[in-house]
Amino acid sequence: MTKTIDLNCDMGESFGAYTIGDDAAMLELITSANIACGFHGGDPEVIHRTVLQARENGVSVGAHPSFMDLYGFGRRRIAGETPEALKAQLIYQIGAVKALTEAAGARLTHVKTHGALGNMAAEDAELARICVDAVIAVDPTLTFVTLPYSQTMHAAEEAGLHVASEIYADRTYTDEGRLTPRKEAGAVIHDPDQSLAQVLHMILDGHIPTTGGRKLPVKADTLCIHGDNPAAVAVARKLREELERAGIGIAPFRTSAPATA
Amino acid sequence: MTKTIDLNCDMGESFGAYTIGDDAAMLELITSANIACGFHGGDPEVIHRTVLQARENGVSVGAHPSFMDLYGFGRRRIAGETPEALKAQLIYQIGAVKALTEAAGARLTHVKTHGALGNMAAEDAELARICVDAVIAVDPTLTFVTLPYSQTMHAAEEAGLHVASEIYADRTYTDEGRLTPRKEAGAVIHDPDQSLAQVLHMILDGHIPTTGGRKLPVKADTLCIHGDNPAAVAVARKLREELERAGIGIAPFRTSAPATA
Amino acid sequence: MTKTIDLNCDMGESFGAYTIGDDAAMLELITSANIACGFHGGDPEVIHRTVLQARENGVSVGAHPSFMDLYGFGRRRIAGETPEALKAQLIYQIGAVKALTEAAGARLTHVKTHGALGNMAAEDAELARICVDAVIAVDPTLTFVTLPYSQTMHAAEEAGLHVASEIYADRTYTDEGRLTPRKEAGAVIHDPDQSLAQVLHMILDGHIPTTGGRKLPVKADTLCIHGDNPAAVAVARKLREELERAGIGIAPFRTSAPATA
Amino acid sequence: MTKTIDLNCDMGESFGAYTIGDDAAMLELITSANIACGFHGGDPEVIHRTVLQARENGVSVGAHPSFMDLYGFGRRRIAGETPEALKAQLIYQIGAVKALTEAAGARLTHVKTHGALGNMAAEDAELARICVDAVIAVDPTLTFVTLPYSQTMHAAEEAGLHVASEIYADRTYTDEGRLTPRKEAGAVIHDPDQSLAQVLHMILDGHIPTTGGRKLPVKADTLCIHGDNPAAVAVARKLREELERAGIGIAPFRTSAPATA
Repeated sequence: MTKTIDLNCDMGESFGAYTIGDDAAMLELITSANIACGFHGGDPEVIHRTVLQARENGVSVGAHPSFMDLYGFGRRRIAGETPEALKAQLIYQIGAVKALTEAAGARLTHVKTHGALGNMAAEDAELARICVDAVIAVDPTLTFVTLPYSQTMHAAEEAGLHVASEIYADRTYTDEGRLTPRKEAGAVIHDPDQSLAQVLHMILDGHIPTTGGRKLPVKADTLCIHGDNPAAVAVARKLREELERAGIGIAPFRTSAPATA
Repeated sequence: MTKTIDLNCDMGESFGAYTIGDDAAMLELITSANIACGFHGGDPEVIHRTVLQARENGVSVGAHPSFMDLYGFGRRRIAGETPEALKAQLIYQIGAVKALTEAAGARLTHVKTHGALGNMAAEDAELARICVDAVIAVDPTLTFVTLPYSQTMHAAEEAGLHVASEIYADRTYTDEGRLTPRKEAGAVIHDPDQSLAQVLHMILDGHIPTTGGRKLPVKADTLCIHGDNPAAVAVARKLREELERAGIGIAPFRTSAPATA
Repeated sequence: MTKTIDLNCDMGESFGAYTIGDDAAMLELITSANIACGFHGGDPEVIHRTVLQARENGVSVGAHPSFMDLYGFGRRRIAGETPEALKAQLIYQIGAVKALTEAAGARLTHVKTHGALGNMAAEDAELARICVDAVIAVDPTLTFVTLPYSQTMHAAEEAGLHVASEIYADRTYTDEGRLTPRKEAGAVIHDPDQSLAQVLHMILDGHIPTTGGRKLPVKADTLCIHGDNPAAVAVARKLREELERAGIGIAPFRTSAPATA
Repeated sequence: MTKTIDLNCDMGESFGAYTIGDDAAMLELITSANIACGFHGGDPEVIHRTVLQARENGVSVGAHPSFMDLYGFGRRRIAGETPEALKAQLIYQIGAVKALTEAAGARLTHVKTHGALGNMAAEDAELARICVDAVIAVDPTLTFVTLPYSQTMHAAEEAGLHVASEIYADRTYTDEGRLTPRKEAGAVIHDPDQSLAQVLHMILDGHIPTTGGRKLPVKADTLCIHGDNPAAVAVARKLREELERAGIGIAPFRTSAPATA
């Protein structure tokens, strides 16, 4: 049976007069769109337009909620949110995008947390649980897209949510299965061949190669495609072609049934 | 059969460290809450908390969307929004509050537009149609709360939406059935007795008395209670008592079946 | 004596992760920069960086204040601001940019109002007066850049402010000396030759050619260069070359001494 | 010679339709106002009005800059700002308030950082230096108001800024001279008598009593008066009366001449 992989990309992050990313071009290459919810980027009209474009391209629509931080594009670590406030912020964002998605005749399929919130929740069990609870509060059939070996993955599985395990082509992994922090040497893979080899290894063999030489088991559901640099579309196109050349099918993720189901 | 009237009040307009209105006290007096959606006031945590309080008091929960204008509290007339952008903004807001409402185990029952948006839409058929379309896009079973003899009422009825016709105790009406503009003399009724008499007339006799001496037919579904001044709760309590003394039941609005249903 | 013209361009409108305009390239072509103040675009770091770049290129630094409207990029007409509030908003913006300009070792030379605020003030004597008063409140030696035959020009001259009269290459003029509204046919000049001819006429002959065939006297101090489209830099470069070929010097405006001085 | 103390209070934190604090009443009791700059609270009109009221009461006007965080009221710790961005944000805020202060015929005398920024800078030498540099960039004659035994005090003195050393009536101090963190037991003094005794000790004897029983030398220039709770004005009035009864003069701080001057 052919192995398949989903390609997901963050988009819909333009705001008012400001444009970021070439969403139209990227939507021809990917299979899942994580759409900004207006807190770190995106505005209602942008969300509406992006959902329509995703639908036209047969791309799955997900919500990409964030800390409330337009100026910092959701990349600043913000401390001091109460659990109640943060959960409400997530429900608000997912609910808003869900309504715009359904108004466009599409269906919201997944949620992926953005930037600093995503990074912090991956490391913090309480934050992870808040994110998972918010998703369940809006719609327990949504799939939670997150990193393997993270607190968010653990919390999502424990709560019985559908999960999609996300892999990176251009980042190395620690022996604990986490992304090597960007500030450390060797965190980013710059060589396209090495990057492709890592991806193929993860998809075809089901192993994450770590910087310490270990091989951690992984069920690769979706590959993160970067969209926020000028070369993004070209890089994505090449990667997609190489995946197809390696006999891998490109298709929306099929979520792993939760352990408790 | 006893006549009944719904009492609605705008609330959930606090934001972050800022508090406005005594929502907890008001929720013991009213039967429908119009909850700010974060664009002119309100934040996700405030919305969440207000929905919970409404549910505990058996008060109906509605969304109260606005122009995107926190600084102006949604009271500034903003021109130049495209219909597509405005419709998306409304869907976004209603969807966000709907998700928070359902997450709190309650049900969203209605929508009432806020401030400058509400005033502009009441006078402008195109704006009115955008508001109505947005409500339908989120949930066509929602009730649209608006003024009689307005473009919004006309558009909502034409589209087959449930409508609740809203009356004011402290405002006079023109011969066209519109609120006398605030800048005109005699727009606001300051005498409590005159105010009560007008309300009773509208509820019991089904007529709006106009400044020109006419009597316009009206089906009074809901009475607008102001919440944004220090005396608001006391005024509301007194009005409620007087309505009950006049034999009028206080209960959530029963929406008029749309003409096309 | 050689005729000279100043070339001014709005810039510093990027915000956080969002980039708009190619300011670095444009600063090599123009002589006056109108820097966004954070209300319609711009953030403190962007302002700081843009001032430094302007200084390195010998470009005059001006403040470009706006309505408080990041989402609408200051292009939405906002009604209902009190004169006191609007004046304070302008002082706030000009003061902030002045401080950042002086901290970078440069000097703030001028103010030009942005977008909807600029358009509204050009037509409305009270708004015009508020803008002028705000400039004087911060620094009465600042030059006010505005359109000839406008309420703002009138108010600035009456108040004794230095003024720089701004002309457009790609817009036609009504018989009253105003820009033909964009929604009317023939408002925008698309033919580069016609555009150049109009500019030369205004600079060399001191006349505005109007759509009704009149010639209105004008002292052209500064030419508005558009910066917000992908072709902007190329268009600006060509225009600058053609002006120089026609023997016109490109230099910062020398402000007309006010009538009362 | 009579000992004197300055009473400072944060104010001007209202925003748009939202009111916080009873600034008018407090301005009759204090001698220095720290005015919010629009980033955590305050808007240009509020700043303008507060400066006018301060001037009428003979109260010194200072700027009270913050992280850009209206939703969190500047109380959330935000990581990831670059030094360049943060310095520009501070210059922007101080410059804006300085312009509004001078437009009202008053003079900006001091700067005190707000909330999370103030707390973080007190502990972090690099942040402290950025704050000090920003003040110097706007006006090196401004006084920097900050806690004794803090990184900000150290940085301000080292840079040759005028400093005013701020004491608290209702907080205990560690043996290092820092405020006991709020989450620790005994951080807040609830007993008015104990609170007064501590203040008198600091002003009259020049010693900070610490939780470990030490006495750290302090030159008490200004006492922080809280303004953000309903009882604030009454508490402030009582404290002022008791200080006067103890023979202490209430007057704007006289800044300590910097060591290098």
